[in-house]
Amino acid sequence: MALSTVRHNHFLATHEPGLNRFNMVRAQHHHVLLDHPKTKTPNRATRLAESLSHVLHLHIDPTSHKNLDLLSVHEEKHSTPTMSPRENISQKWREIQGYHNWEDILDPLQPWLRREIVKYGEFAQATYDAFDYDSFSEYCGSCRYNQNKLFEKLGLTRNSYTVTRYIYAMSHIELPRWLERSHVADTWSKDSNWIGFVAVSDDDETRRIGRRDIVVAWRGTVAPCEWYEDFQRKLDPIGHGDAKVEHGFLSIYKSKSETTRYNKSSASDQVMKEVTKLVNFYKGKKGEEVSLTITGHSLGGALALINAYEVATTFLDLPVSVISFGAPRVGNIAFKDELHQMGVKLLRVVVKQDWVPKMPGLLFNEKLKMFDEITGLEWVYTHVGAELALDVHSSPYLKGGMNLSGFHSLETYLHLIDGYLSHETPFRSEARRDIALVNKSCDMLVDELRIPHCWYQLANKGLVCNAHGRWVKPKRDNDDIPSHASEVFNAGLGVVM
Amino acid sequence: MALSTVRHNHFLATHEPGLNRFNMVRAQHHHVLLDHPKTKTPNRATRLAESLSHVLHLHIDPTSHKNLDLLSVHEEKHSTPTMSPRENISQKWREIQGYHNWEDILDPLQPWLRREIVKYGEFAQATYDAFDYDSFSEYCGSCRYNQNKLFEKLGLTRNSYTVTRYIYAMSHIELPRWLERSHVADTWSKDSNWIGFVAVSDDDETRRIGRRDIVVAWRGTVAPCEWYEDFQRKLDPIGHGDAKVEHGFLSIYKSKSETTRYNKSSASDQVMKEVTKLVNFYKGKKGEEVSLTITGHSLGGALALINAYEVATTFLDLPVSVISFGAPRVGNIAFKDELHQMGVKLLRVVVKQDWVPKMPGLLFNEKLKMFDEITGLEWVYTHVGAELALDVHSSPYLKGGMNLSGFHSLETYLHLIDGYLSHETPFRSEARRDIALVNKSCDMLVDELRIPHCWYQLANKGLVCNAHGRWVKPKRDNDDIPSHASEVFNAGLGVVM
Repeated sequence: MALSTVRHNHFLATHEPGLNRFNMVRAQHHHVLLDHPKTKTPNRATRLAESLSHVLHLHIDPTSHKNLDLLSVHEEKHSTPTMSPRENISQKWREIQGYHNWEDILDPLQPWLRREIVKYGEFAQATYDAFDYDSFSEYCGSCRYNQNKLFEKLGLTRNSYTVTRYIYAMSHIELPRWLERSHVADTWSKDSNWIGFVAVSDDDETRRIGRRDIVVAWRGTVAPCEWYEDFQRKLDPIGHGDAKVEHGFLSIYKSKSETTRYNKSSASDQVMKEVTKLVNFYKGKKGEEVSLTITGHSLGGALALINAYEVATTFLDLPVSVISFGAPRVGNIAFKDELHQMGVKLLRVVVKQDWVPKMPGLLFNEKLKMFDEITGLEWVYTHVGAELALDVHSSPYLKGGMNLSGFHSLETYLHLIDGYLSHETPFRSEARRDIALVNKSCDMLVDELRIPHCWYQLANKGLVCNAHGRWVKPKRDNDDIPSHASEVFNAGLGVVM
Repeated sequence: MALSTVRHNHFLATHEPGLNRFNMVRAQHHHVLLDHPKTKTPNRATRLAESLSHVLHLHIDPTSHKNLDLLSVHEEKHSTPTMSPRENISQKWREIQGYHNWEDILDPLQPWLRREIVKYGEFAQATYDAFDYDSFSEYCGSCRYNQNKLFEKLGLTRNSYTVTRYIYAMSHIELPRWLERSHVADTWSKDSNWIGFVAVSDDDETRRIGRRDIVVAWRGTVAPCEWYEDFQRKLDPIGHGDAKVEHGFLSIYKSKSETTRYNKSSASDQVMKEVTKLVNFYKGKKGEEVSLTITGHSLGGALALINAYEVATTFLDLPVSVISFGAPRVGNIAFKDELHQMGVKLLRVVVKQDWVPKMPGLLFNEKLKMFDEITGLEWVYTHVGAELALDVHSSPYLKGGMNLSGFHSLETYLHLIDGYLSHETPFRSEARRDIALVNKSCDMLVDELRIPHCWYQLANKGLVCNAHGRWVKPKRDNDDIPSHASEVFNAGLGVVM
């Protein structure tokens, strides 16, 4: 076990001694809840949080309190639309995709860029919201809806994209805790999880944004502290040079097996095949301007970067941008350099208090380089690209105190982006995004708002009362049952090509 | 702290060291979950469970396993009605109400009696299912529906009773953890909780059951281990003789305060007034045969018995029966004797593995009488009435292992009654009740059934997405907002009188 893992476990264990936090994390999906300590005098956990915060630059102030009349502001907003107006940005699309490395448009953040960042973040959030976490479901680990219904079911039709393909990734023995597995014997797949999707902008959206935009959205893990431990072991080479990326990430991206149903081809194969098809159609056949935007949160952000590397080595003249949220470090300096040389643009959105972007190599790259010798790790994980740094304290709606799960939650990121003007101005009063979304799967909103924590849940965990008065799990609609990968391959946009 | 409390806390603490179970209990409402230990070799918790089981006659076999093909049986039942046929029992009603102390009809259990016991159990269950536990709700601690909609909302119209009055009880400083309190400042009531209801049989049901049946259903607590600690301190006198009952129970039943909105009169006053009104109307004015059946689970069963005592001292010629589920001991021997002399009939349904019916005085009345001297408690809590003893092991659908919350859950009781034929025959294969209900608020069903644990939950914790795309807590329907006690007093059946 690596030293930084020990550090993390220690922290959790100290906050509530003896409580098996890993089990709780599993039960609560992707949430590690560490509530604000209720005691007035700092306890051991608070003191440890403070000192860790100092060492890791986590910018945590465990004592901060807010006294605004938030409830009335919140309730006033109830009768206003949640989204900013969609202006025509067709002249600005290269800037938005990072052609100038987002220089001079991040601080202050241009409103037309903010809206696009949120749009991509919502694609990443969709991979969580539609995921079937129910271990009693025979479809555990799949998407609850078929690709034609995904955006409609999640209320994301306003983004005006069409999903053209779902991506599946494989789990294996070396990453035993990564996959969501069904408890039941007869399942849709024992080896695969839904890991994301490919989508493409509709004609109207294409006109508004100035080019046909292909999006790849990668799902993150349900329990960061688990892959943290599993994934930080070693770096594997990628490409033909010195570039290396973290073994665990690459393994999810590249693994396949003939014995599986959904991963006879790897996630990489699936994505590359779909992107190739779409680029050939829109760019090759129709002669359109085409961009590729790859997005993801947490692990999904790491996969996005590896995916970008592969696409960039394959399509030399395709503009490739990555917009990642709370993503950990992925590879070494050579990896970073090659991405830069190939023109891949990366915008890393990070919350200062979030610990995940500091991993792996948290302890190796920051203050404590002397651990390199102890662990025998001679390589260095490194971040690439431009950074949009957000601060939990900037929002009057968020609690103070230590909440590692809340700091890392994608909905927290989207809330903070929505309120961000510049690094020295307060939270944007015209922020439109629904504040309640923050608490979907964590406990970050101040109590005054009266939004329950972790409220995103199915009625009766999906059971429904049938005509005989019995509570049963309804059969999934046939078209929401995952089909064989080869069967879905030509669905979606395939029909028009 | 009494010795038996120490025993209980110890048990929990040993199972998962350091975990604050009280907080979990509060968070999960009325559930203490102790999962079946996964390890093969008995750990400290298992060994303690075994020895406690032995001392307390809890009949727990931590190693029991079941190997039936349950899923197919379960799924076959999906297309059959959940209830047994309702036969005419008008000639048997005195037997059902315990006129002969249920002699010779409990073992084997007569089918017409089983159905009536389940009916009363469902009234008690309704007080849990409709309770608002949401501490962010301004109506926390109230019933979610008004009395005219209660049975309809819970799918209980088949029982053909009409609610005539809701009962509210007060909390006070000496029982700080008993009341569900809203976190928000502006609430329906700061001092009261909905504690039950009075209902009366409709005309059709009255013909079927042979008399006009008035029911009083009392709600239990959300966290048995809490009132266990709070309530077992001392006995208070009741009536004019030597009868005494446990202080905490009596206090909930009797407390009132002019400064409250719903408890200017006590729960006792409210019930007695309503029962008086109904008896005067149906018995006095219409000349009907009238019975009173008082039911409750857990704390609710204790309140039912105290309520029965008061009614019996007031209405000398009214048949009064109590059907309680998992109720603790309530009073001393004189209390028992007086109830007997007044002709109150009590049927106590108990699950052998449930620890609550052994409280208070668990350690004093059983093996360890020597503690009397240590604690200075010279009184003895005692049970009264007939007992229907159920065994968790009789059901092939229930897990083995230690699950204190599951053993005590009212839905577990109703499931076991439904399957009970006699103490020496296996679970009834024609049992009709929906098995999935058992897991509503606990984790008792074997995994093969694929019923999620604790599945009884609102979609998105009651938040709904409004026309602007914002997630808000909808305002309650006006007629579901608790009204002032004096305002509701003449609702329901009052209008026909």
